[in-house]
Amino acid sequence: MSDFFRSKWVPRPPQAIELAPDRLPHGYRAAGVHAGIKELPGGGEGPLDVGLLVSDSEETVSAVRFCDNALVGAPIAVTSEARTAGLRAVLANSGNSNVADGARGLETARASQKAAAQALGIDAELVGLASTGVIGRELPRDALLAGAQACATALGPDSEDFCQAILTTDKGPKRACLEVALPSGAVVQLAGQAKGAGMISPRFATMFCFVETDAQIEQETLDLLTGVCVKRSFDRISVDGQLSTSDTVIAFANGASGVRIESESHDELAFGEAMDALMRQLALEMVADGEGATRVGRVVVRGATDVVERVARAVADSPLVKSALLGADPNFGRILQSVGQALGAGAPFVVDLSIQGIQVASAGVVLDLDAEAWRTLERAVESPEVDIELSLPGEGGETEVFFSDLTHEYVTINSEYST
Amino acid sequence: MSDFFRSKWVPRPPQAIELAPDRLPHGYRAAGVHAGIKELPGGGEGPLDVGLLVSDSEETVSAVRFCDNALVGAPIAVTSEARTAGLRAVLANSGNSNVADGARGLETARASQKAAAQALGIDAELVGLASTGVIGRELPRDALLAGAQACATALGPDSEDFCQAILTTDKGPKRACLEVALPSGAVVQLAGQAKGAGMISPRFATMFCFVETDAQIEQETLDLLTGVCVKRSFDRISVDGQLSTSDTVIAFANGASGVRIESESHDELAFGEAMDALMRQLALEMVADGEGATRVGRVVVRGATDVVERVARAVADSPLVKSALLGADPNFGRILQSVGQALGAGAPFVVDLSIQGIQVASAGVVLDLDAEAWRTLERAVESPEVDIELSLPGEGGETEVFFSDLTHEYVTINSEYST
Repeated sequence: MSDFFRSKWVPRPPQAIELAPDRLPHGYRAAGVHAGIKELPGGGEGPLDVGLLVSDSEETVSAVRFCDNALVGAPIAVTSEARTAGLRAVLANSGNSNVADGARGLETARASQKAAAQALGIDAELVGLASTGVIGRELPRDALLAGAQACATALGPDSEDFCQAILTTDKGPKRACLEVALPSGAVVQLAGQAKGAGMISPRFATMFCFVETDAQIEQETLDLLTGVCVKRSFDRISVDGQLSTSDTVIAFANGASGVRIESESHDELAFGEAMDALMRQLALEMVADGEGATRVGRVVVRGATDVVERVARAVADSPLVKSALLGADPNFGRILQSVGQALGAGAPFVVDLSIQGIQVASAGVVLDLDAEAWRTLERAVESPEVDIELSLPGEGGETEVFFSDLTHEYVTINSEYST
Repeated sequence: MSDFFRSKWVPRPPQAIELAPDRLPHGYRAAGVHAGIKELPGGGEGPLDVGLLVSDSEETVSAVRFCDNALVGAPIAVTSEARTAGLRAVLANSGNSNVADGARGLETARASQKAAAQALGIDAELVGLASTGVIGRELPRDALLAGAQACATALGPDSEDFCQAILTTDKGPKRACLEVALPSGAVVQLAGQAKGAGMISPRFATMFCFVETDAQIEQETLDLLTGVCVKRSFDRISVDGQLSTSDTVIAFANGASGVRIESESHDELAFGEAMDALMRQLALEMVADGEGATRVGRVVVRGATDVVERVARAVADSPLVKSALLGADPNFGRILQSVGQALGAGAPFVVDLSIQGIQVASAGVVLDLDAEAWRTLERAVESPEVDIELSLPGEGGETEVFFSDLTHEYVTINSEYST
């Protein structure tokens, strides 16, 4: 039994062994401090809200991915103009994002980049930025700059405080560290720290994920691996269909292990599999930790290439399907309705539907399940992870979306708090 | 103060006077009975679940509109093949829709159409059908046929029982009867009965609306008026973004008043205004009665024609915006985020935003509101009807969507009951 690879959909790759989850690969250090951005409910030591992660080697290469919202935060704008292929550090904060604040927001982002760089003794263009929290409120500049400096003096070999400092409505930290045995016999380490619980959807979402390895990898290869892994992980999840303005993935490879992974080698394949599993499981943690979530669904859609994505999104984002998932109600009618909505008027409705492997509709017509089959189905959807499979006419397309249920807690979180 | 025109967005047209809400125009009769389709919780007189509405005149013309889901119920399929321009009656039931049941569902629909027609002594092709309730479960045929016959013997001059018989999760009946004074000096009556509370969205939604007038109108004119009014009413509302499989609007004009409304006359304009107000208010009743709803928002978007609709839908369907509406939280950040999501990566984010008439963002940047302006805004969003206005670059496009808030009650209704 794996501690980290808890989902039935993400088996642990055999070449990967789990190390302590807050461990960092060789040559990385991190810290997290309370800088006063998160409000302090009732005094005492405040929650951590500024984190800094650093790779010590000048040989470090990096790859970045951001959300594709028309409205993006100043940290993304500033990081995009930095040296994205050779970043050495990332400064992240929670409690307040830095979005829609115009010139002032950009100045705050640039000042924080500079403060972190000076404290680390590196160029400002080597520092990436990430902010999460309330949108449209001014990010307190002085607190962030002080936090950056405090972090630089508190750097240590584990990611614990860093992970805490990037959380918003997350129930807890999301991280893992793997030791990956490569086919060549060498061993490298690979770690990831993520956050994300709400405003999670299309493409990847209100989330950060920072990935580090001590392998030596060509930047182009790291970039390719990062892109593919993002597409199969944070791109395939939805809590509430809401695309954030601040989503950020940054991957680092610093070569500190002395192990070089050649491009297009068996080693790259094995390493990529581990990175894929790491990021898929981190993505699933976000869905399972989706604000108030109690259950995770996976909808797989097969059919014509131009149809599968919109059908999968329609099912995953339907509040009726999501409420039924909460209630452990195998409500195939709502699934078929959302498929029909996505297909649109006049489209042939020739749809096969299975829930937890039990077929409930064939060619658009609901099957008559006998009482025992129905009981089996009702028990099956009480599982914490529920499979929905749809087959449509046409060929060549197949996609999946992981989604959380819609709960009272989601409504409470998002109506009673300004997040 | 109007009893029916309660929304600030739908003033009573001066030419319209409200009659008793369950009144029917001259020459119409209706009934509703308990036929045993809705389950009976604990014995006693059961809830009404089959309704019949009839126009007595052979001169009756009609117009119909249906949802544009790829999956539509058998009643819509059968009604579409009936004489849609000259329907005389509609047989409606609640408690169970008739969707995704293949040949059996079609046979049930045709049998019920025939039963109603025989009981009324008219051709089957003059009877429209409408079913609402759980999707994908067999509609009990015998109960529906018995209900049709019982209704035919119970027809009376008011719509009370008919309105009750079409409800599902609605809190109560939605209906009105207006007396419309035409510019020519003549007077006609116009009534509408509707249902709809959940699975309400894009274009018009899990809803029925039946409209009757005793005016004499050309069928083409009635069809045109019906189309325009649907576009401005049921087409502009969203409870949960879910398009139903059974939405049905049927309008009847029977000429029983002896008043002929000429096409393209001042009378038609005045009548059309009254019909528009009637249907818009009925649509707003659906939003206000959206499963669990406590507050209604209206988002108005102005800008380029190819953008406004998708931006308005993105705001209206965002569970984050809807949760904030519940919490009376003027959360402009979530509104801007959903606009940015709809616009997509790289689009210029030049957006003006006002909430309840108070501007909060200009050209994509959040304005610094002082404490008093902020307090005014916070009080303003406690209103039961909240206005959101967005201006985007471009010209020629303007649209509106009315939407309900997302509440705990919505989650309860849709997770604890199979609807």
